[in-house]
This record gives sequence, structure tokens and C-alpha cells, in this order.
Amino acid sequence: MGFADATAVRRRDDTTWDADVQPGWDINGNANGGYLLAIAARVLADATGRPDPVSVTGHFLSPGKVGPLVIAAEVVKAGKRFATARATMRDGEGRTVLAVLGACADLSLPVDAPERIDAELPELPPPEACVREPTGELMPVPFRDRIELRLHPDDAAYLHGRPSGRTLMRGWFRLRDDEPMDAVTLVQVLDAFPPTIFNADLPVAWTPTVELTTHVRARPVGDWLRCRFRTRYVTAGFLEEDGEVWDATGRFVAQSRQLALTPRAA
Amino acid sequence: MGFADATAVRRRDDTTWDADVQPGWDINGNANGGYLLAIAARVLADATGRPDPVSVTGHFLSPGKVGPLVIAAEVVKAGKRFATARATMRDGEGRTVLAVLGACADLSLPVDAPERIDAELPELPPPEACVREPTGELMPVPFRDRIELRLHPDDAAYLHGRPSGRTLMRGWFRLRDDEPMDAVTLVQVLDAFPPTIFNADLPVAWTPTVELTTHVRARPVGDWLRCRFRTRYVTAGFLEEDGEVWDATGRFVAQSRQLALTPRAA
Repeated sequence: MGFADATAVRRRDDTTWDADVQPGWDINGNANGGYLLAIAARVLADATGRPDPVSVTGHFLSPGKVGPLVIAAEVVKAGKRFATARATMRDGEGRTVLAVLGACADLSLPVDAPERIDAELPELPPPEACVREPTGELMPVPFRDRIELRLHPDDAAYLHGRPSGRTLMRGWFRLRDDEPMDAVTLVQVLDAFPPTIFNADLPVAWTPTVELTTHVRARPVGDWLRCRFRTRYVTAGFLEEDGEVWDATGRFVAQSRQLALTPRAA
Repeated sequence: MGFADATAVRRRDDTTWDADVQPGWDINGNANGGYLLAIAARVLADATGRPDPVSVTGHFLSPGKVGPLVIAAEVVKAGKRFATARATMRDGEGRTVLAVLGACADLSLPVDAPERIDAELPELPPPEACVREPTGELMPVPFRDRIELRLHPDDAAYLHGRPSGRTLMRGWFRLRDDEPMDAVTLVQVLDAFPPTIFNADLPVAWTPTVELTTHVRARPVGDWLRCRFRTRYVTAGFLEEDGEVWDATGRFVAQSRQLALTPRAA
């Protein structure tokens, strides 16, 4: 089952949608956060009648398990260019998995605005010279088999117990089997890479996400997406992870920040 | 009237709060976004019973005008460490001004976690050698008289028609009359500086905020806050503005990102 099917939502009535956490989109039994946020983004898009999730914020409240989801959503304001909606995702037992607030638009409409970039594209060897992360070394990561991920060799050495010492994770992403990528795919990409903290020599084993905000600026064109994740501040029990995504044409298409916890490893 | 009074909220019932947009907290007649988000943060804190707004996301839907506000809020989940709530702020005419989703906690509790910073403190001359932004040059900015702001001289030359060419804005912030600063003050600080775009030589005159997310890691200690705002990507009609704040003890206390629009100046 591809990404579009695995994130499909079905409208039940004006304010209720059904969806399913499909098997295989998990890390150690818990659905990947970007996957859950992508499902929520499809609900926001459907609720607002605007196809592209420009800004989506999710607060992760309980782990997502394989099985049915019920998503309640309401439009807060439908403006000319953007429409804003909120959603609450619950699992089959009624537990709240995710609370969401977001704005959608139609990014195919023309924009007249100046452009200026003060950042470097991440330098990456071609995908075939990058590292396909093996799964199941530390814990089962079935999710990594649902997507195509290739890590920069410098950032992948943590897999062999040699973290780079830089809280940086760069690499390529695409969907499997040449499945086309839409704006919602970018929400998934922005939480698909191993945590940057794996490359720091710190006693932190896991970093649960409190909140993830994704910004999509344009629909991606082509296949491999060029991605960079970076952390600057690991302080007071928190870290931020900033994501940036360019499409195959070299266009900057998406950006994210998540706030995660950094509990000391036992 | 100080910041605490100007952002005070009064609980009316389980799910409703009253507040007021006070005169003088506006830019050209519209309340400053950080000021509105700070009012919403006080509601989140009161609704959850946790004093500190750790992560707050606001979507700005209509301008805030001087006068009464009614804020509806509900707790989505009250966990052990964090409690998550959402809020909707409406003005006296019932227009939705702001939709909010956030998590609060008690940041006075001890944390056992490793620390690591991969960034430089912004280098700033002392406050008395920085530039107090004059108000009313391009448009009335009464808000700047409600707070104490001092800009890095290199980033303030835009005031005399010489933008630095870097989408960067650094400076000091404190409340007036030695008013103590709490965690909610940081929400205000993160949208108190002139837009970074004023230092770019681009035909952009105003940048309405679509969404602002603030992260507070610690309560500030001391008076002057050291602040840096930076923009890397002005593309597709959008820009992000990333904020970072350190307190007078040199501790990293808060971070933000906003997504704003960059319409071409007429």
C-alpha cells in the first residue's frame, strides 16, 4: 500500500472523518509522527476545500497504534487565500492521539512576490552513493521500509556507533515505486529522518515530540527530495529540530520545526 | 499600564475568558501579534493550571482593535508534565482574531537532561550603545513606546534608508519601569522587533503573519533580554522569521518561528 492509500481519509459527516493507521508505518509499534500529521493534513485540506496544507501544527498526545482513527475537524475561518481549521484525532479507544491547527491554500495559484535565499543547499552525494539506513538494529523501524531514505554518509556513521558529533542529518527522500508526491507528502518527509541527536555524543536515547509545525511553500516536482535537519539548542530538557526540503528542481518547498524532549538515557 | 495588566485575563466560566486590547499596544491601529498571543497564552495557562506556555501556536485571522476580547478555551489533554489546550479569541463584534493551540507546564520543576548548544550568542553592544527605534517615521507604532527595545546599530540603519542587506534584526528587550518578566513576556518578545525584511533590499513593505509558534524553555532572569531574528528563505510569497532569546544570565530561554506573507509592494 502506497502513501496516498495509507493516509487516505473518508468524510463521515460535516465534522467527522475516518482513517486508519496502517500496519508498517510505525517505529517500534508506534506510528511515525509525520505519518499521523499527514493524515490530519488530509482532513484539514478536505474540511477547508483547499488542497495544500501551508502551515500545520500538531501536538502529539498519545502513541498512534495500528487501527481505526476518528478525526473531528472544524473550519475556524475561510478567507480569500487561506482557510484555517482545527482537528482532533482519536484512536479506536477514544484516546486523543493528536491535536492539530492549520491553514490550507491552493498553491497552484500564481504568486507575485520577490525571492531571496540566504542559505546553502545541502551538499549531498547522489542517492546511490548515500546510505540506506538498515532497520531493526536498535529497535524495529518498519516505517523506514515504507519510504525511500538515503542518508549522507557523514551523517550515517552513527549507525556503526560513530556519531558525527554534529546535530545534523542530511539525505534524500522519495516515495516507493515512483509514487507521485503531493504537498501532504512534504508533511510526512519533515518527520521521516532519524533524530539529529543520534549524531551527538549525548546520553539521550529517544526524543518524544511535543509539537511539530510544518510549512509547505510549494508542491514538489520530480522524485528525490533533498533534506536537511539541524538542531542548535539542546537545553532545559528540550531540543528543536529544524527541517528544510528542496525538490528535484532545486526549489525550496518546505520547512519545519519540532519541539522534542531530551530525557537523560537511563 | 504595564505588560501584566495589559495582558490580564478574567475567567468568566469553565470555558470563557474576558480580556481587553488596551490602547497603545498597536502598530498603525492593529494590536501587535505578540501582544495578542501573550493574552492567549495567559488563557492557556489559566485553563490548564500550568503557569508556563512551553509551545504556543497562533493563527492570525483578523486585526485586533482596542476593546473587549472574549476567549473560548478547552483543555485537550492534561498529562503529567504538559497540558495541551486550544483557544479562540474573538473581538467585541464576534470576529475571530486568533486561533491558538498550545502546551503549558511548570518550568520551575527540576529537569535532568544533557545540554549542548551549537550556536553563537548574538554579539551586541551594550543597550546604551544600541539604537532606540524612533516611532512614527513611516507609520504610527505606539507599541514601541510600551516596551524597551534597543537595536544593534548595524541592523538599525534601515531607519535612515540604508538597509544592512542582511535579513537579520538583533537587539535588547525589556519591559518598562523595571516590570518583572515572566514566561508569557517571552511570547511577547518573540514578536516585538521590526521585521527582518526591513533590512533586505526588497520591494516588500509589510509582512502579515499567517502563523507564529513560540517555544519557551525557561523563565527569564534579570532585565535585558538578548534577541536575534533571522530570515533565510523569502520564496513563493512566504518568509519565515526565526527568533531566539537569551536572558541576562546568558541562558537560552525562548525560540520562535513565524510564517509571514511577502506581497510585492505596490
